[in-house]
Amino acid sequence: MTGYPKFVEFREEGPREGFQIEKKIYPIEQRLAFIDMLSDTGLRQIQVGSFVSPKYVPQMADTADVFERIRRVEGVRYTALWLNENGFQRALAAKDVHIDARLLFYASDTFSRKNNNCSAAEMRERQRDWVRLYKQHGFAVETAYVMAAFGCNFEGEISQDRVMDDFRFILRLAEEEEIPVPALVIADTMGWANPEAVKRMIGGLREIAPGARIGMHIHDTRGLGIANVQAALGMGVDLFETSVAGLGGCPFASHGHARAAGNVCTEDAVFLCHELGIETGIDLDKLIAAAQAAERLIGAPLMGRVMHSGGLAQYRRSKS
Amino acid sequence: MTGYPKFVEFREEGPREGFQIEKKIYPIEQRLAFIDMLSDTGLRQIQVGSFVSPKYVPQMADTADVFERIRRVEGVRYTALWLNENGFQRALAAKDVHIDARLLFYASDTFSRKNNNCSAAEMRERQRDWVRLYKQHGFAVETAYVMAAFGCNFEGEISQDRVMDDFRFILRLAEEEEIPVPALVIADTMGWANPEAVKRMIGGLREIAPGARIGMHIHDTRGLGIANVQAALGMGVDLFETSVAGLGGCPFASHGHARAAGNVCTEDAVFLCHELGIETGIDLDKLIAAAQAAERLIGAPLMGRVMHSGGLAQYRRSKS
Repeated sequence: MTGYPKFVEFREEGPREGFQIEKKIYPIEQRLAFIDMLSDTGLRQIQVGSFVSPKYVPQMADTADVFERIRRVEGVRYTALWLNENGFQRALAAKDVHIDARLLFYASDTFSRKNNNCSAAEMRERQRDWVRLYKQHGFAVETAYVMAAFGCNFEGEISQDRVMDDFRFILRLAEEEEIPVPALVIADTMGWANPEAVKRMIGGLREIAPGARIGMHIHDTRGLGIANVQAALGMGVDLFETSVAGLGGCPFASHGHARAAGNVCTEDAVFLCHELGIETGIDLDKLIAAAQAAERLIGAPLMGRVMHSGGLAQYRRSKS
Repeated sequence: MTGYPKFVEFREEGPREGFQIEKKIYPIEQRLAFIDMLSDTGLRQIQVGSFVSPKYVPQMADTADVFERIRRVEGVRYTALWLNENGFQRALAAKDVHIDARLLFYASDTFSRKNNNCSAAEMRERQRDWVRLYKQHGFAVETAYVMAAFGCNFEGEISQDRVMDDFRFILRLAEEEEIPVPALVIADTMGWANPEAVKRMIGGLREIAPGARIGMHIHDTRGLGIANVQAALGMGVDLFETSVAGLGGCPFASHGHARAAGNVCTEDAVFLCHELGIETGIDLDKLIAAAQAAERLIGAPLMGRVMHSGGLAQYRRSKS
């Protein structure tokens, strides 16, 4: 139940998160060069763009071109985000998109309405349609998410019962549809979690889904991101969605001052794992180099820490 | 031994850390306004400047004036840094400096030489002289520090044995001099700690000094700062030295890119405590306002998180 995992998988979201949130549209060549750097770090899954409305998100309008032009490294899954069937069809039509068939659940009604124009209950029902659509196209569901699992800037505290109710629905749906759900992801979309809440939530989920693989999507909005990763690691969680250099951020979480932090920073979390003796398959120095490249590209200081200080291997090497 | 404390004390270092590291010299009026904001947050100890060489640190040359002009709030101790007897004498001569008589030990020889122009062993012996000097002037030692306790960018990994050896020396010195040492502070001056190392170190120190009050001075150089605070809280540590907005940083830790993070950010750590149900006596909203004021003053994004997102009390209030 508890105790650190031996190996942790990181799924990278920086290329989408980072460039989707910027007002400026960065030339495709620059984004390709950045993604190509990430491909050599040992990361096994990289979300490179999204198939969403080019009207609302012009930064991602060329995602099909990105898939056309990225350098492919064997063993790396290149994924994309979509929010509706039209986007999914565009993903299918693009070159070699790894379809990481996802189911999305919302623990906050208001947040669901803002993101999906429908209630959380309707969103639940829509996931049945997604399961069938994925099946039709021969894809197995890979991950089911419960978003805003710890709290919501619109609705306040979210009860653990509510989140568990969503996960129970997911488990029933999986049973009814006779599909496995390889990973259950608890998403702290607006940075409400703290280490004790993380431990309680994972403990609760393990009770209703013993043996399930649990992942976490953690935002560092209020500075507890890495402490929450640490708490999850201690509970045996071996799957995290993160963003190199801390690229991105949730626009809803910001307060009109400087931008609020977004996803937990990949290289800081990888550094934590390595310091704890947990393997990740990732070359931290290469990841830091990619984070630094992203910072040069964005042209403003990014939120990552270890990208500005370097890791510790260099000092240990020079000593021995 | 373990388990969260009920109340945690934060000692604020931002006004010194933050403005000492900047090349620019900020007008005294601006710094006074910032310190005056901090005085109203509930913080009980604020380090407002340093009595060091005005030739090397011109930013702090007016520290005596700062002490003359700050607005005093009852119950708040206003402290300063000094590195030698001359600085100490200047602190004594200034207006109402709270002399937080400190003993400084170095777990790294090279770091001691860089900071003090003497070996760690010589630095140890010098602390005897400090005890006597403090006694002469009627001050009781308040805190003893072991610096670079987890590792050193010059010497690499520091063994826990070496750190414990320093603490044993401190305990013997206290016995010989017949003085109490109210707080033993483990300082991760260059950001080498991780949560497991923190737990081991505190466990080790509790073994040789059962019943002693343990404090931590943690740097967020590599992003594990808050996770390390969390680990220390879980071990019952109730004293932290931190820096509002994450002001400051260790120049040695930087790698020539953007500046490496310095002290753990006070308001992020306070937010963590409050989320865990630990009292701090601090008004988080006022602390956030002070952090934002510091950011406006510095004129560049600072490293704190919760200062950019706001805490959670606002959402909880609006819901109920």
